[in-house]
Amino acid sequence: MARIVMKFGGTSVANLERIHNVARHVKREVDAGHEVAVVVSAMSGKTNELVGWVQDMPKVAGAASPFFDAREYDAVVASGEQVTSGLLAIALQAIGVDARSWQGWQIPLRTDAAHASARIDSIDGALLISRMAQGQVAVIAGFQGIAPDNRIATLGRGGSDTSAVAIAAAVNADRCDIYTDVDGVYTTDPRIEPKARRLAKVAFEEMLEMASLGSKVLQVRSVELAMVHKVRTFVRSSFDKPEDIDPHGEPPGTLICDEDEIVEQEVVTGIAYAKDEAQVSLRRVADRPGVAAAVFGPLAEANINVDMIVQNISEDGSKTDMTFTVPNGDLAKALAVIEAARGEIAYDAVQSEPGLTKVSVVGIGMRSHAGVAATAFKALSQKGINIRAITTSEIKISILIDGAYTELAVRTLHSVYGLDKA
Amino acid sequence: MARIVMKFGGTSVANLERIHNVARHVKREVDAGHEVAVVVSAMSGKTNELVGWVQDMPKVAGAASPFFDAREYDAVVASGEQVTSGLLAIALQAIGVDARSWQGWQIPLRTDAAHASARIDSIDGALLISRMAQGQVAVIAGFQGIAPDNRIATLGRGGSDTSAVAIAAAVNADRCDIYTDVDGVYTTDPRIEPKARRLAKVAFEEMLEMASLGSKVLQVRSVELAMVHKVRTFVRSSFDKPEDIDPHGEPPGTLICDEDEIVEQEVVTGIAYAKDEAQVSLRRVADRPGVAAAVFGPLAEANINVDMIVQNISEDGSKTDMTFTVPNGDLAKALAVIEAARGEIAYDAVQSEPGLTKVSVVGIGMRSHAGVAATAFKALSQKGINIRAITTSEIKISILIDGAYTELAVRTLHSVYGLDKA
Repeated sequence: MARIVMKFGGTSVANLERIHNVARHVKREVDAGHEVAVVVSAMSGKTNELVGWVQDMPKVAGAASPFFDAREYDAVVASGEQVTSGLLAIALQAIGVDARSWQGWQIPLRTDAAHASARIDSIDGALLISRMAQGQVAVIAGFQGIAPDNRIATLGRGGSDTSAVAIAAAVNADRCDIYTDVDGVYTTDPRIEPKARRLAKVAFEEMLEMASLGSKVLQVRSVELAMVHKVRTFVRSSFDKPEDIDPHGEPPGTLICDEDEIVEQEVVTGIAYAKDEAQVSLRRVADRPGVAAAVFGPLAEANINVDMIVQNISEDGSKTDMTFTVPNGDLAKALAVIEAARGEIAYDAVQSEPGLTKVSVVGIGMRSHAGVAATAFKALSQKGINIRAITTSEIKISILIDGAYTELAVRTLHSVYGLDKA
Repeated sequence: MARIVMKFGGTSVANLERIHNVARHVKREVDAGHEVAVVVSAMSGKTNELVGWVQDMPKVAGAASPFFDAREYDAVVASGEQVTSGLLAIALQAIGVDARSWQGWQIPLRTDAAHASARIDSIDGALLISRMAQGQVAVIAGFQGIAPDNRIATLGRGGSDTSAVAIAAAVNADRCDIYTDVDGVYTTDPRIEPKARRLAKVAFEEMLEMASLGSKVLQVRSVELAMVHKVRTFVRSSFDKPEDIDPHGEPPGTLICDEDEIVEQEVVTGIAYAKDEAQVSLRRVADRPGVAAAVFGPLAEANINVDMIVQNISEDGSKTDMTFTVPNGDLAKALAVIEAARGEIAYDAVQSEPGLTKVSVVGIGMRSHAGVAATAFKALSQKGINIRAITTSEIKISILIDGAYTELAVRTLHSVYGLDKA
């Protein structure tokens, strides 16, 4: 017997037929003797409809500002998951599985006061645990909790992953199964490299890098949470036939786990990429304390998401070059902000270039292996791919290149680290 | 300054434009210095969509029974009003009116345990009153509260009227304005009798009879509640332009109030009718104690809504005729129930007739005026309309006739009691 949290996203509950399919996945685990909690998203498209209404309401009212009260946004948008939770409970009862729906405020799942992008403060797992112990499936509306003001708070888009991992931690679940429209985490994007292999296991830290680097499989916050609470998390497919799966064995898909669980650590685990980046370079910036703050403070205030930041040590200690990347769509705004701050930053010239791609090599094994970066640089250079900028962390190397070379670079790196081999 | 509860139904909040229009109605009252709570229904069509999903879910799951858990029905269906309450709060804020949404569980509005058709147990008005005193409009999701099991409970279809009146009683409101798609209560249906007049005032008891008799303006339960708590309730139009109304004067529309408030009481206030009734007559039933229970017990168990019941005193004390009416749609089921109970009831024959109409004359003044019934019988007979059955109460006479004569009977009675005159 295991205690399992299962999470199903919007496409998995898009209509009554799919909700029935989810119920059959749940029944399989219940029939195997497991205690089960299920976390659900809103039916596909519902959240967008609700968010659209909230955003349009001030315009329809002729308001000068598009402002809306985040607490009311939460009341409106959270209704989507509420509907799914009730329907799945009914679907489970219809096939003979005892179940009830739980809203965030009923558990309670307590959040901070940051409505519309709240963080989870605490979850009282006692009620859930006692009901699960009685054999009742807990069907939990994801993405939401209750804020200190006794009002509904949502966790931000994609928050249902975070709900699921947090619930799993709160009820001491043996594992958390995230059902998605892919069947696991791959060594790279299979649409680019057909030889990409599904990973049996990925360490939390690696998954965190891959999630940050553009892999859409899991929300970054949910991986952080899983890492902190050591929640064994499986990424698996909701399209598998419920009957084809052995509920007693290890689930199919990819296990995200502590690195200790991964016996034979590969040097490199995967190749990630993020397209549509733009580079901004400030030439001959005065190299004095506070200059980085002068550059990135105004960008943050303008709500521009700065990604890579590269600054070289200046030759003579007086002037330096500074490069950073932003999403293509934010480039014009970023340049305007930099131009407006010219008096304070004191640079000679600005250069910019849109349409770039950041390719990243990720692997926990890198920490103990020299030469991983050199291998990447050599392989790319042999293909004639120019490296514009490089940043590294302990377990990751990120390289900025021209967007036109994206696929070639991903395939080259995938091959050079031996990830093609079964 | 007055404290006002305003209630808007589904068609009044059907889309963002109409929600904006509702906000302007509310702003008018706020600008006049009133304290305001608004009770809203789900956007038109939403409740039907949600109910449809709940009803279809067991079928999609292949369940033998169409059973669904009423508690889950409540969680799903209550989401419709939740959405409207958030959107209206945003619409009010957008035009400069301080407002916040309230769900039933936040107030709290406590109900009994009868999920899906709950009755209100108690409402804590303290929080609402203190916020309204600070000038904040309370936007309340109608139709719902919280049951003793800490789960959402809905009040049954049309329950938002009941919510509004109950909230008005709980916050000691000066009045409750029910905005509808008609501009008040009429002496009869204007589609049948163009000379029908809008009533300035109707006594609670009269409105109760008219609501029970087919007038769709207000839910019966809300009128009962208004009567018990003496909530002055206005039926008024949501299509009036918000700017055209003087927020300081008495509202346009019909006031439903204590009969003491109605100085010049008319003998007859209005003519109501209910179409599509079917008559069932049991001939020569044994006239002994318990026979009525033997007839109506099984009908109630079969969930058949019996309306008129007529039983004559038998001539010789041994056999009697018994007649009752049911909706046309329930006739076949009613006859099957009666046939199955033949052994117990002991009757000679059953006769039935669908396609009948019940016409009712309503008026509190009737109590002190003799001859009101005789006037009706004579007028109908002069038009050649055959009376099939009669039931009376202190303030109402109901007459069962052939459906083909509905319009003629309504116009005849409307005229004979002088309701045509301005």
